Amino acid sequence: MTRVAIVGVGQTKFDEHWERSLRDLSTEAGAAALHDAKLGGEHVQALFVGNMSSGRFVGQEHMAALAADAAGLNPIPATRCEAACASGALAFASAYNAIKSGKYDIVVAAGAEKMTDLKGTDAIATLMGAGDQEWESAIGLTFTGLYALIARAHMQKYGTTREQMAMVSVNNHRNGVHNPYAQFRKEISIKDVLNSSMIADPLTLLDCSPITDGAAAVVLVSEKFAKNFPNPVWVLGVGQASDTLALHDRENITEMKATKAAAQAAYREAGLGPQDMNLAEVHDCFSINEIIAVEDLGFCRKGEGGKFVEQGSIAVGGKLPVNATGGLKSIGHPVGATGIRQIADIVRQLRGGLPEPIQVKGARRGIALNIGGSGATAVVTILGKE
Amino acid sequence: MTRVAIVGVGQTKFDEHWERSLRDLSTEAGAAALHDAKLGGEHVQALFVGNMSSGRFVGQEHMAALAADAAGLNPIPATRCEAACASGALAFASAYNAIKSGKYDIVVAAGAEKMTDLKGTDAIATLMGAGDQEWESAIGLTFTGLYALIARAHMQKYGTTREQMAMVSVNNHRNGVHNPYAQFRKEISIKDVLNSSMIADPLTLLDCSPITDGAAAVVLVSEKFAKNFPNPVWVLGVGQASDTLALHDRENITEMKATKAAAQAAYREAGLGPQDMNLAEVHDCFSINEIIAVEDLGFCRKGEGGKFVEQGSIAVGGKLPVNATGGLKSIGHPVGATGIRQIADIVRQLRGGLPEPIQVKGARRGIALNIGGSGATAVVTILGKE
Repeated sequence: MTRVAIVGVGQTKFDEHWERSLRDLSTEAGAAALHDAKLGGEHVQALFVGNMSSGRFVGQEHMAALAADAAGLNPIPATRCEAACASGALAFASAYNAIKSGKYDIVVAAGAEKMTDLKGTDAIATLMGAGDQEWESAIGLTFTGLYALIARAHMQKYGTTREQMAMVSVNNHRNGVHNPYAQFRKEISIKDVLNSSMIADPLTLLDCSPITDGAAAVVLVSEKFAKNFPNPVWVLGVGQASDTLALHDRENITEMKATKAAAQAAYREAGLGPQDMNLAEVHDCFSINEIIAVEDLGFCRKGEGGKFVEQGSIAVGGKLPVNATGGLKSIGHPVGATGIRQIADIVRQLRGGLPEPIQVKGARRGIALNIGGSGATAVVTILGKE
Repeated sequence: MTRVAIVGVGQTKFDEHWERSLRDLSTEAGAAALHDAKLGGEHVQALFVGNMSSGRFVGQEHMAALAADAAGLNPIPATRCEAACASGALAFASAYNAIKSGKYDIVVAAGAEKMTDLKGTDAIATLMGAGDQEWESAIGLTFTGLYALIARAHMQKYGTTREQMAMVSVNNHRNGVHNPYAQFRKEISIKDVLNSSMIADPLTLLDCSPITDGAAAVVLVSEKFAKNFPNPVWVLGVGQASDTLALHDRENITEMKATKAAAQAAYREAGLGPQDMNLAEVHDCFSINEIIAVEDLGFCRKGEGGKFVEQGSIAVGGKLPVNATGGLKSIGHPVGATGIRQIADIVRQLRGGLPEPIQVKGARRGIALNIGGSGATAVVTILGKE
């Protein structure tokens, strides 16, 4: 099987783009990735697009064909992949498989979501499409509600504190200041987090990632083609796994089995372990999820994620920089785009050249974790340079 | 690269399943396919599900994780693929790539849609998510309207008649009588079609495929594993292509460029041509589309599809039996399931043993065409037995 490399990355600013359409955002991100790779659209052989819910957000399904059309890429195959907030990494995984199958040499994997066209409560209801409609949404659970249940269980079982969760948001906002693509480029304090509006106890507004419009894209090539590019970043392993859709069906809601299974698969494929990683991009849709992520990816022992954060291990310069570009919290979370944005940010880190306060020095390997819903899908991607 | 074979097929009855959920239908189809393959769920390594719009139809995204969960298949990777009415074949194409990539040996590709939970006009609006929201849906175009424009153009350019279109529905209903899974098992006459309610001139009710609930699944295995099965059907070629989402952006609306490009790719991979096919399953969402399909797949010259139908070439026993099990018109069209159902029906034909009036005798190779929207996505699959 051929190896696969990433040779271009691009994205829009993550923001509230009231004046722009899904079509527009997708095209900008794709063009930026191709420009970065110094390739023209005529070289692209297939397109995979991650998108969670354009049907509900903007009345448009068939989103990958839309993106191919808008970018003038017809008649290339265009496939939309969906697993809620893990849609982006799924599109990446599908593009990776497609190149490994020998069918294509140059493929674009993208993600896009236009969320702000729906009003607040409609957006919340749409996002609950990621949970179990019959057992969770129908009784009024929201996503913050689900993660609040998870947070309470983690606090009770392991003594994780409210302050430790707040420190996740503080860390990610501190980093996001230096990311020109981030929605909120503003430092916040632990006090700010604790004093912000309560959404679902114990999670306050500043524990929650925002509603965002945006798109991101990466260009993947086969090994044969990678030789033509100066700075390829290699895909070392991709793992994907599923778990029960409803939280109540799980034995233990303080861990994510899908993350563990996906990480195991990705580490195995890469022939590497947690100790070999220089940085991580994890899915901090809610602050508690970053704490659980560092545990389930093996960066600390189970239950010690809060302490890991408190000790400053996740800071740039710490033991394992996590969400060094700002995470979902500060960059924003256009759901279908996030998984691709995470991968693009790892590529940027491995290439070097990010602003000094967020550049992880000497980074050679990074890991991304993209989660769908309350953990029913997890995708782990490991990237490295030679 | 490994070759890939289909070793199990299953589906629910296609019908209005008021009392059943998407979860329920998916599980039944998947279990039937595994039973057919004599495999247990523990053998399945990955799941790909085609679904167009469960977010709007039943408030549930994250549909592949739902299906994996309901079937007890966690933690296997579960990916939803979407390209409107071509979602099923996309799931199949993704499963095919995943095996060819060397990552898996046993994969289930499924499709499911639960459409009848929405009322009539809401269902029509949801289906228009397959078209161009900004340029078509927003001005009130419906899918029947789009295909009516195509039909009028074909009639004007090539002299295709209203009666020839009606003959497509008559042929498919004649076949569907013998298909136990079909929604409408009832013969109809040309007069019935012409006299049924006008939906969008020139298309009447009986030119249109119905709104349906249902699911279908197939089991794919690598060559190494295929040896353990008595009657594998081989995947000889898969082609996928895209075209503009909006009809008005095309030079010529009497042909589907995506079909032509997808067919060319599939024929090339298979090393075969139209003359080598013994039967076809094509996407008769509207009668005119079957006429255009037989032209664009190369079974007759451009513009002669109407005549091809009139001469009885599409009948079982004719030159090239088309939709021998009833097509979308008689079997029903749960959008995300249709592409998988078509492939399952070709497998059944190649195995032999269908009821005598619809069994294509001595069939060794078949071709399926699954179309998304008004032709912005096309997937062509060629199957054969040794």
